[in-house]
Amino acid sequence: MFRVLFTSLVVMCVSVAYAQDDTTVKTIFDEALRNGKSYEMLEHLTKKVGPRLSGSPGAAAAVEWSRHVMEDFGFDSVWLQPVMVPHWVRGQQEMARIINSKKMGTVSVNVCALGGSVGTGPGGLVSQIVEVKSFDELKQLGVKGVKGKWVFFNRPMDPTKINTFAAYSGAVDQRGSGASEAAKYGAIGAIVRSMGLNSEEYPHTGGVRYAPNIPQLPAVAISTRHADLLSKLLKDDKDLQLYVETHCETLPDAPSYNVIGELRGSEYNDEIIVVSGHLDSWDLAEGAHDDGAGCVQSIEVLRLFKLMGYKPKRTIRAVMYMNEENGLRGGLKYAEMALKNKEKHIAAIESDRGGFTPRGFSMAADDAVKQKVQSWQSLFKPFDVWDFTQEGGGADIGPLANQGVPLFGFVPDSQRYFDYHHTPEDTFDKVNKRELELGSGAMAALVYLMDKYGLK
Amino acid sequence: MFRVLFTSLVVMCVSVAYAQDDTTVKTIFDEALRNGKSYEMLEHLTKKVGPRLSGSPGAAAAVEWSRHVMEDFGFDSVWLQPVMVPHWVRGQQEMARIINSKKMGTVSVNVCALGGSVGTGPGGLVSQIVEVKSFDELKQLGVKGVKGKWVFFNRPMDPTKINTFAAYSGAVDQRGSGASEAAKYGAIGAIVRSMGLNSEEYPHTGGVRYAPNIPQLPAVAISTRHADLLSKLLKDDKDLQLYVETHCETLPDAPSYNVIGELRGSEYNDEIIVVSGHLDSWDLAEGAHDDGAGCVQSIEVLRLFKLMGYKPKRTIRAVMYMNEENGLRGGLKYAEMALKNKEKHIAAIESDRGGFTPRGFSMAADDAVKQKVQSWQSLFKPFDVWDFTQEGGGADIGPLANQGVPLFGFVPDSQRYFDYHHTPEDTFDKVNKRELELGSGAMAALVYLMDKYGLK
Repeated sequence: MFRVLFTSLVVMCVSVAYAQDDTTVKTIFDEALRNGKSYEMLEHLTKKVGPRLSGSPGAAAAVEWSRHVMEDFGFDSVWLQPVMVPHWVRGQQEMARIINSKKMGTVSVNVCALGGSVGTGPGGLVSQIVEVKSFDELKQLGVKGVKGKWVFFNRPMDPTKINTFAAYSGAVDQRGSGASEAAKYGAIGAIVRSMGLNSEEYPHTGGVRYAPNIPQLPAVAISTRHADLLSKLLKDDKDLQLYVETHCETLPDAPSYNVIGELRGSEYNDEIIVVSGHLDSWDLAEGAHDDGAGCVQSIEVLRLFKLMGYKPKRTIRAVMYMNEENGLRGGLKYAEMALKNKEKHIAAIESDRGGFTPRGFSMAADDAVKQKVQSWQSLFKPFDVWDFTQEGGGADIGPLANQGVPLFGFVPDSQRYFDYHHTPEDTFDKVNKRELELGSGAMAALVYLMDKYGLK
Repeated sequence: MFRVLFTSLVVMCVSVAYAQDDTTVKTIFDEALRNGKSYEMLEHLTKKVGPRLSGSPGAAAAVEWSRHVMEDFGFDSVWLQPVMVPHWVRGQQEMARIINSKKMGTVSVNVCALGGSVGTGPGGLVSQIVEVKSFDELKQLGVKGVKGKWVFFNRPMDPTKINTFAAYSGAVDQRGSGASEAAKYGAIGAIVRSMGLNSEEYPHTGGVRYAPNIPQLPAVAISTRHADLLSKLLKDDKDLQLYVETHCETLPDAPSYNVIGELRGSEYNDEIIVVSGHLDSWDLAEGAHDDGAGCVQSIEVLRLFKLMGYKPKRTIRAVMYMNEENGLRGGLKYAEMALKNKEKHIAAIESDRGGFTPRGFSMAADDAVKQKVQSWQSLFKPFDVWDFTQEGGGADIGPLANQGVPLFGFVPDSQRYFDYHHTPEDTFDKVNKRELELGSGAMAALVYLMDKYGLK
């Protein structure tokens, strides 16, 4: 009986506490929707700063801009965390031509060098093409079928996956590892079908990862439309040749920074909650959804707390990582310094799936933590944020996992993301104000609850 | 024991049945995502047909286009259902100027006549302005405060409503009834803050409804940006004058049509399931989200069934209603003819909230029907369609309620809808292919389940 009574009391207390939380969570969303600054910040980052690949002048400008913004909002501390980053440059625009096809003669096709790729040099490379859909198929062909040729990786993203990130995961091995796999059999380079779900004119860039001790081949993405064209022409004309010229190169590592802003905790200031995005973008993109959105949402969480006069018990950090796109050096450096400085992170959240209508949060944490967060689910329901079932955190916060930090990924609607991802189409006008600000609200609400109740 | 066994058997059978449904529902979504034609159809309707207000040449073209499309897809029957519709024309573009304001002198502001409004005539109207936020406030002012003036209805939509349709409902009385309310106190006309959530340059049109036996006043929408400007200037300058000139007029009713395509049921062909949208749009808009999306999705449901070789047991009708925007004559005519012809409709679904990512379906039906539909919820979950809690159907299918027909409204994500609604911004490029096709999939899945299991 005592236990029943006690349990009832606990349930009642929890309900009462959550009843107040209802009000606070609503206030957070209301402020985000009425007085949010995420959209205004994003406009500046995309339109005044623009592309900001690691090591570029744009990246340096983005660092300064975000430092100033957080200082102007009056956060308790704002600082730069030095990190050396890869410095890859595209050089002059790529050229590619299908040569002397039977049906169409010589045709220009749209390609772009993959980030981190070596260039072909000024003379370009011309050769026959062998099309494959998988590394298994490549292996079957072996040296005999591949040597001296371009390998054309043409497995599309699966359009029937409702979670478009799952479709991306199912195809992106071709971009990341295609060049090194092709090199094993003596290919001269890799042509990779763009990671996009539509028939598009523009190629999608993205990182290539060369395996150690294997020759590094030039690797380019080809637009989905031209991938389909090339595949079609190859069917009738196996001896078709492709000319590709790229001028990209990797320069010595360059100095850069993670940018960090902090509200210090009033009770447990040694317990840190990170809310984050990555500041770098690809050179071809304004980086509106990837990941300007995540950066401004992270700053906005702290700004909303100040606006509401909410004094966190724990220390809340907005972290803008550098170099997610082609090295993850910022994420690695942050984790390294956290370990070195014996910092205690109780949670790290990343927003890096676009600034779309929020749906929920993914988690990489133990079951007790997951259950605690899931117990807050009803507080999010009025805002149509309902999905707390997915597994995972985020790339930049990933290195904190080794220190046992529970990781959380902001999960928005993902249907439009891969129309823009890593392309010149990832621009400010593709972001909707309400959708972006609702995401900031959802993130702030989660941080508020973590701050108030902890995760133990 | 027998009952337990029997219940278990029933549960097993249901599970087995639903297990097959899992597969069919997935096939429906897969086909929509792989081979969907909704987007292609919408491109034609918006870009080749364009604006299509009732009685306009565009509306006539839309009727012919949709008839041809459904005939070309080989539906069992396609026909036109005659209906007389209001024929309102905007005439030459509206002009409006704030005159001799203390701070800014004379300033042009962006207005558009509300649909159905009388015009000011070529000379325009000039007068002082009284700003109100509600009909109560207007009543307080009375004849003394209002006579001979413009009434400026300036209550904004509430940005904190997560369901933007709720925000719309909370403000749209000003547009619909403002002119007649103002007329009661001797106003010369109504200026209505646009139904939009952002600060925008362009006004949103929409229908005005004149009350009987009250003078009909000219009514215009003013852009939200200029509503804010006008309100600000009025604060310092109560005697400010506004000049408005509109040339709209209502011509005699014109002949038009609902367009209907049908797949005849193989078992219960007298039981009809309607899936629908409205073909007319405002004259200022391409009508991509409102409601080209609903039309092409409705056609697509039948096309997907044919593509899959699915022979419905019941009769499935795609109905494109005419005149939702300024009269609802199509919806009324359809219900009238259904009654006259003693047709048995078991369900009517409408898609008229935009072609965005699907979230669920609203229902206006008795509890047994609601529970039956909710029992299918798990079949929709893999496609992130989860909300079967909202009340309501759709405007055009509304008149069928008198005949006891259960009504269903397609519910997509609504965050962006009112950025475009009734404006020149409601264009094809604002629609995302996957989002649109997913909606078609969700609607087809619902119709499939209704067809297979009925609603009793």
